Formats: sequence, structure tokens, C-alpha cells
Amino acid sequence: MFTIFRGSQSGAWRVKRFAGVKGESLAPTPSLSVTHSDSIALPILPSQSGWRLIGVPSHVRYVERAEKEQLVAVQAGLGRAEAKLAALIPIKKSAAWWELTQEERRKIFEDKSHHIASSMRFLPAIARQLYHCRDLGGAFDFLTWFEYRLAHESLFEELVGMLRETEEWQYVEREVDIRVERERLDAI
Amino acid sequence: MFTIFRGSQSGAWRVKRFAGVKGESLAPTPSLSVTHSDSIALPILPSQSGWRLIGVPSHVRYVERAEKEQLVAVQAGLGRAEAKLAALIPIKKSAAWWELTQEERRKIFEDKSHHIASSMRFLPAIARQLYHCRDLGGAFDFLTWFEYRLAHESLFEELVGMLRETEEWQYVEREVDIRVERERLDAI
Repeated sequence: MFTIFRGSQSGAWRVKRFAGVKGESLAPTPSLSVTHSDSIALPILPSQSGWRLIGVPSHVRYVERAEKEQLVAVQAGLGRAEAKLAALIPIKKSAAWWELTQEERRKIFEDKSHHIASSMRFLPAIARQLYHCRDLGGAFDFLTWFEYRLAHESLFEELVGMLRETEEWQYVEREVDIRVERERLDAI
Repeated sequence: MFTIFRGSQSGAWRVKRFAGVKGESLAPTPSLSVTHSDSIALPILPSQSGWRLIGVPSHVRYVERAEKEQLVAVQAGLGRAEAKLAALIPIKKSAAWWELTQEERRKIFEDKSHHIASSMRFLPAIARQLYHCRDLGGAFDFLTWFEYRLAHESLFEELVGMLRETEEWQYVEREVDIRVERERLDAI
């Protein structure tokens, strides 16, 4: 099952902020939609009206057993009605990252960057889903999707700020940060 | 770049043996071709005349730094003129495998199954390329492609036999084993 993020003129999520953080940005669009499909054609052809990014939820790559159990126990799923805010952060890591071995990546990921441990305190407030797209030949390696309540907006800023400070993030060579909010039903 | 293995009526490789090892087999075809493309449509639609499997070469997942250097120093590339024989072994691992964490998979992969260490003695005689297809939503998780000389046919049998004995292989729930030889140019 493929998940398709589409930036265009309409969609269930209204764009509040659209920022190129590193490398080439995407064309800003007023809306974002998230759909799922069993079939796709790759590569995604450029569109006049916006852009599309495709990923697949995948198995975990870096967490160890105790961490996995901890995460599963604490994390929230997507689609909570009260989570009116969301963020899509597509990232691409450098060739140097992918040249590393799994153990070296894990060391940077957790031992040095404390990615998992530091993320725990943002759970379950911030729901998170990682989609892989490197093997799909897209422009990004990962699409990260977060959902949270208005009351947790500054907590989310803290999470993003913390991630960008890590050693792991030094391997990010392209990053776009798209903040969205649910369209009010009466406004559609 | 996607690599496409196509089983059909003609192709650069003639099928010598086509065996379903575990789970559902593929429809046997007389020939196999290997092509590359930047674009594909997923899922692959069923074809009257044969089957297609698509994968992407990907970064290494389990080897550690010393092993990686050892492998790179010793391994042979694909396309050696003298390598007239090849094998395509598509495999799918069970849900139980993918539920494991990376460290647990690595333990089974190397510490218990000695996959890397045991494979070293088959290098450079057997050239090997692993293609990933789990994230492409296909029927298999990996497509493994081997190329070797006629003189190393029994060495290759030994390699395959060794792999199937490992603990890692107990997680394989579907496997097809397709042995091919290069079509003689004067026969085309």
C-alpha cells in the first residue's frame, strides 16, 4: 500500500506554513491531501498544479527490542479527531549517510543523536508515521508525518528543533517543512 | 533505477531449471531477461506470456564496517564474460522476520547464521547482487541474482545449500530457484 501526499489547490489539510529548510524546496501549494493506493506509476511525473510524494510505511530499522516495546506502548496512532494540526517533513540524506553500515548509522542515530530516547517525551502527544521512499526512486528518502493538537504546537517546535540539532541531521541534505491544519468541515 | 527480471519466451538467458522451493512457485518460462528502467508502474500486472519481478539495488543492511571492506575487496561485479551461468532466487520472508528489530535480525543473520562469514569463501567465484522489492509492494521481499562460471556450478550448489540450512532461512516462506545460462550468440 502506497501513501500519496499531494500538494495542490484543494485537500483535507490547509497549508499554514511552507518552508524549504535545506536544499531545493517544493513549490508551495495552498492545500495538502493524503491518500492511499495499491497502484502507482514511477517516477511521479511533474504536475502543473502541484507536486506528489509517495512512500510506504515500512518495518523499523534502528530501534532495539526494549525501545520498540516502549514506543509501541506509548505512541499514538494517526487520525485522532483532536489532532487538528499536522506536519509533513520530507528529507533526503546524503550519499555519505548511505555509505555507512547499519551499525554506524545506528550509532549516530541513537548513541550520539539519542533520536529514540529524546523522542519518547513527545509521545503520545505527537503522533508520528515514517514513510520510506528511497527504494521508490523519489527525490526524498523519507516522508515524516506528524499529527498533534493545537495545544501541542510549541511542543512540536521543540521536537523539530531537537532533531535538527542532532548529529544524525547533519546528514540531511534536503529538507522541506510543511505545516498544515485540518480544513473545517463547514468551510468545504 | 529499477531492475526488471522477465520470464518469457525469449531473452538473453535460457532457463535450465525452474523450481518452486517453498510456497507458491512462478509459472516456468523457457527464457529470462534482465533489463533496467527509470520508470515502472506498480503493481506489475499479470501477463499471459510470463511474469515480471522488479527490484532496486540498495544500501547494505547487515554488514559491519570490517565485513563491508572485506566484501568490497573480494567480491566480483556482474557481467563477467566467463560467467555463463546465473541464478535468480526470489524470496519472501515471514511476518515474524519483519516484526523483529534490526539488532535481532542482524543476530540471526550473522551471529547465528554466519551468513556473511560463510559467504566469503564463495567470493569472488560467485558474483552476487541483491535487489530489494519489499517496499515496492511485490510478491517477494528480495531478488537475489548470482553469476558464475560453469566450473563453479557445484560451488554454487554448496552456497545455496549452506544458506538454506541457516536459521535465517527458516524465516523464508516463499522461494523460487531459477537457474539460467547465457544464450549462445550464434543460436539467437
